[in-house]
Amino acid sequence: MTRADRPTIVDVARAAGVSKGTVSFALNGRPGVSEDTRERILAAARDLGWTPSTKARALSVSRAFAVGIVLAREPELLGADPFFPSFIAGVERTLIDRGQALVLQVVPEAEEEAGYRRLADAGRVDGVFLLDLRVDDQRMALLEELGLPAVSIARPDAPSPFPAVLVDDRPGIEAAVRHLAELGHRHIAHVAGPAHFLHGQRRRQAFEETLAAVGLPAGPVVEADFSAAGGAAATREILKPAGGAAATRQILKPAEQKPTAIVYSNDLMAIAGLSVAVELGVAVPAQLSVTGFDNTDLAAYVTPPLTSVRTDPYLWGRKAAEALLDLIDGGTVDDVPVPAAQLVTRASTAPPPPTVRTEKR
Amino acid sequence: MTRADRPTIVDVARAAGVSKGTVSFALNGRPGVSEDTRERILAAARDLGWTPSTKARALSVSRAFAVGIVLAREPELLGADPFFPSFIAGVERTLIDRGQALVLQVVPEAEEEAGYRRLADAGRVDGVFLLDLRVDDQRMALLEELGLPAVSIARPDAPSPFPAVLVDDRPGIEAAVRHLAELGHRHIAHVAGPAHFLHGQRRRQAFEETLAAVGLPAGPVVEADFSAAGGAAATREILKPAGGAAATRQILKPAEQKPTAIVYSNDLMAIAGLSVAVELGVAVPAQLSVTGFDNTDLAAYVTPPLTSVRTDPYLWGRKAAEALLDLIDGGTVDDVPVPAAQLVTRASTAPPPPTVRTEKR
Repeated sequence: MTRADRPTIVDVARAAGVSKGTVSFALNGRPGVSEDTRERILAAARDLGWTPSTKARALSVSRAFAVGIVLAREPELLGADPFFPSFIAGVERTLIDRGQALVLQVVPEAEEEAGYRRLADAGRVDGVFLLDLRVDDQRMALLEELGLPAVSIARPDAPSPFPAVLVDDRPGIEAAVRHLAELGHRHIAHVAGPAHFLHGQRRRQAFEETLAAVGLPAGPVVEADFSAAGGAAATREILKPAGGAAATRQILKPAEQKPTAIVYSNDLMAIAGLSVAVELGVAVPAQLSVTGFDNTDLAAYVTPPLTSVRTDPYLWGRKAAEALLDLIDGGTVDDVPVPAAQLVTRASTAPPPPTVRTEKR
Repeated sequence: MTRADRPTIVDVARAAGVSKGTVSFALNGRPGVSEDTRERILAAARDLGWTPSTKARALSVSRAFAVGIVLAREPELLGADPFFPSFIAGVERTLIDRGQALVLQVVPEAEEEAGYRRLADAGRVDGVFLLDLRVDDQRMALLEELGLPAVSIARPDAPSPFPAVLVDDRPGIEAAVRHLAELGHRHIAHVAGPAHFLHGQRRRQAFEETLAAVGLPAGPVVEADFSAAGGAAATREILKPAGGAAATRQILKPAEQKPTAIVYSNDLMAIAGLSVAVELGVAVPAQLSVTGFDNTDLAAYVTPPLTSVRTDPYLWGRKAAEALLDLIDGGTVDDVPVPAAQLVTRASTAPPPPTVRTEKR
């Protein structure tokens, strides 16, 4: 019998009227398949002449027992971002327990598609994590074409065939804006991440929607690149509207009234913003309140300690890896809920200066 | 002919009186082998009845075309350390050009040996990078036992059969101490990294030796864990000797004279130290000078901007990967020199307060 004539689990699945994943579960004796279904699958396998050697080819030989990440980022930004190593550490915690390895590719953005193709063509991985989702992200289609299962971190804005770890940045930003509004701030600015990233866009939307929800006027939004230098330039633009810096792009004109608070899209930009405030003689929090995002290790140890949004990339990594391995094993995997991010209030936020508070009435 | 009877390239190498690597180069037609040697190797291969199918098994089937890193760190410290992702990015730059992948394992320290064994036993990688070298590191022996080629980042303190990327932290610390001495400081403290890490130990030694070399008294050294919290606790211990914190261990008693400068073993601890100085009412740099190490993205954007030592983990990663792939290909690889770290002076260092400067005469 030639190789091409051998029945595969796809044939067994078709004959039994179930998914390939269910066949894999049934043939491996794993739980989650009813006894009736298991019987039907085994009968179909017998009828088709499916054999263990075929099984070895279909289920084992083609398995890499590894999962992958392709990361299209500049090395400089990679080094400054605490998300990535914490996420990796969480992924590894799950992989080690299940005997799997992680294959990592860091590529220039232009080589990203080639990176996924390399992993798929060489059979190096059985599935991948989708990080740094973009607005209208094209990678879901690519991965479907390559036949690579995936789990995305956050739900994409387009239909996706893959389960997602339901990371949602919006409640954290909403909590920051509501906290500032309750302190009495009426003119709040936002230093956003790049708008082509979904997390940058969603944080900005949450900022704008929460301002509207609490009845405050729209505040200025300056887009930056998540770096310290970008955060510093954006802060100068907000505090000294005359001197807009080239590294940032202003999305909305600042209101006439100078902001008394800035909501930053990450801690790195917020910490850089604190130093710009000192340089310009703007006292934090007496004249300006500042919030970050990520609650990095340093947030509690800058001056003043930074109010920030605590996220949990380690947990996300663990959950994402569990979901991806279940998916590769042929299970049906739902989206994975995770706890919402929490605001951690520290000394960088306080009521606005009295003159401004008077003005608002 | 049974598998056990087939000649391998080890047999060919023995017969030709050359290394296995040289045989691999010769049989693959790669440059770097003289014509005489190549002839001798091909003759030995013919005499032994060495065949391409044997070649396939010896040279290709056993190759993973991947290299590995086993990292034994707490996720929290991993997230705060800019070294690791920059190093990875440099490694990837080389790997992509040469069609190789990176397999990463992050494990608790107790599972480190198991991590290397997993990579070796599963044939997942052809070699590994040795990071975070320890004093009297046992991993070189383990890797020799496993037959895994390696490249270490920095030269170990024990004999090692593997090439090293010659990262040397000492000139950077020496430059920081000399800079402070030239500014007029006579009482300088050091917040060290963990003494069981070679880089922590070498930075501390460079601190102590440079003080002696410029004729200054030994300064207090407090050991911390490279974290922001550890740096903050160590700074409190130095500035308020009465309130030693549990998270740190004091190696030397502070001199009678309170230090006017602190040399930190990384930026994260130095930035946390800046905030403790503010909290204690100690003005930086008027009353206290501070230096960091790594020149992280934030160093230029804290208040005051941090004098630090610029390192280049991206370059180290590129060089380490080139050396490891050459080694795996059977080449003879020497230690790899890299440029010495440079001190970047910013506003966190200045002459000591006048009263102290008077006192020193």
